[in-house]
Amino acid sequence: MYRLFYLLGICLVSITSIAQKPEENLAKLGIQLPAVSAPIANYVNVVRTGNLLFLAGKGPLQKDGTYITGKIPADVSIEKGYEAAKLVAIAHLAVLKKELGDLSKVKRVVKVLGMVNSASDFIDQPKVINGYSDLMVAVFGEKGKHARSAVGMYALPMNIAVEVEVIVEVEN
Amino acid sequence: MYRLFYLLGICLVSITSIAQKPEENLAKLGIQLPAVSAPIANYVNVVRTGNLLFLAGKGPLQKDGTYITGKIPADVSIEKGYEAAKLVAIAHLAVLKKELGDLSKVKRVVKVLGMVNSASDFIDQPKVINGYSDLMVAVFGEKGKHARSAVGMYALPMNIAVEVEVIVEVEN
Amino acid sequence: MYRLFYLLGICLVSITSIAQKPEENLAKLGIQLPAVSAPIANYVNVVRTGNLLFLAGKGPLQKDGTYITGKIPADVSIEKGYEAAKLVAIAHLAVLKKELGDLSKVKRVVKVLGMVNSASDFIDQPKVINGYSDLMVAVFGEKGKHARSAVGMYALPMNIAVEVEVIVEVEN
Repeated sequence: MYRLFYLLGICLVSITSIAQKPEENLAKLGIQLPAVSAPIANYVNVVRTGNLLFLAGKGPLQKDGTYITGKIPADVSIEKGYEAAKLVAIAHLAVLKKELGDLSKVKRVVKVLGMVNSASDFIDQPKVINGYSDLMVAVFGEKGKHARSAVGMYALPMNIAVEVEVIVEVEN
Repeated sequence: MYRLFYLLGICLVSITSIAQKPEENLAKLGIQLPAVSAPIANYVNVVRTGNLLFLAGKGPLQKDGTYITGKIPADVSIEKGYEAAKLVAIAHLAVLKKELGDLSKVKRVVKVLGMVNSASDFIDQPKVINGYSDLMVAVFGEKGKHARSAVGMYALPMNIAVEVEVIVEVEN
Repeated sequence: MYRLFYLLGICLVSITSIAQKPEENLAKLGIQLPAVSAPIANYVNVVRTGNLLFLAGKGPLQKDGTYITGKIPADVSIEKGYEAAKLVAIAHLAVLKKELGDLSKVKRVVKVLGMVNSASDFIDQPKVINGYSDLMVAVFGEKGKHARSAVGMYALPMNIAVEVEVIVEVEN
């Protein structure tokens, strides 16, 4: 009898996790996707080639329309940098939602290049870019796990604290 | 009668724009593609995989064989940097022409990583890399519009002012 | 008679070079692939999409488990940097071996982004990243020749001297 309940439990967990859409995960996390910001120059937010989407680099755009700016950790703490990277992930999710209509069409987050506006002796870029990676995994589960580089930049546009670009594979 | 001329006009404009080959656009811009410069180390200028071409990073090679060098804006102005980025686009177009024979085989400029040799407080990398993007759009039209990141580098090979790498999709 | 021996010679050379597996080249070079190091944060070492493998950025991990760290050439000489880049190639080969089982499944090393932890006036990044490129060509021959960018970074995780990310095409 106990075993039966155990098996039923496993089934329910499986069904729940299968049924859990990225949009539902976002809602649980209390995240509302913002409007997609226009590119700041003569380029586009995303290009599809075959089943791959190449997304343009985005920065940590806040709800008030301003960016988190400054070098990490001199101007912006690692913790704030983590939040900044999370904001970049939200910006990319908004681009994906607009492009695909349905985030369930994401087959895999393939490759992330995380660029941190760094002080010269800052060596914890991974702790910052985790803000991006953790959210992608929270939203997409296993499909959100990506290959990644996290590196320190000397200067970024508008002095944004973090910039990330990403390649995403989508369903046929 | 007026409407007829109007419709005829639209037809003519459409035909002209369809017929306008990238090579013709280059000619109109007064741009002659240079010989492709050899890679400066043990690598190649371009690798094709499926319908994607991955082009190696190139610098702003001038007609006299020298590069535009220095940090922006300390050594090189933003305007000069824009011209430097345009030179990098010309170098990539030369690689594409050599690889494809015919630039009309370009289906889409997919993704650009624009790297600007920056002073620490320089935050206008997009204004520089626009030199690259604007030329690609001038040559390829809608097909030239790409996803992009434009970032500030601490140091570049031979102290070149700009380096760009690009992914291009080609026709079957 | 001389011509016959000559032709036989050509045949033998061809057969030898066809038969030479990447693993055999590694053995000749006296290189033993290490265990694959775990990613240092919430990401994975490699993602496959279609016939492309996107490998995460890796650093110059030494046999004793420590990384070669410091800026080039202030803390680490160009020669040592070349060796560091070679160590990154070995780390990537270990990832490929684990993923593919057989390195002969590599169809082409497509694209390399080589990032050198640089002093501000360092302009010889290509000489450093050659350590990576030369080993890939020594192991895979023509298939190892890739498109590449080699650039100077302001800061890298754990102060590693070199970080490289790579895209590899594999057989069906």
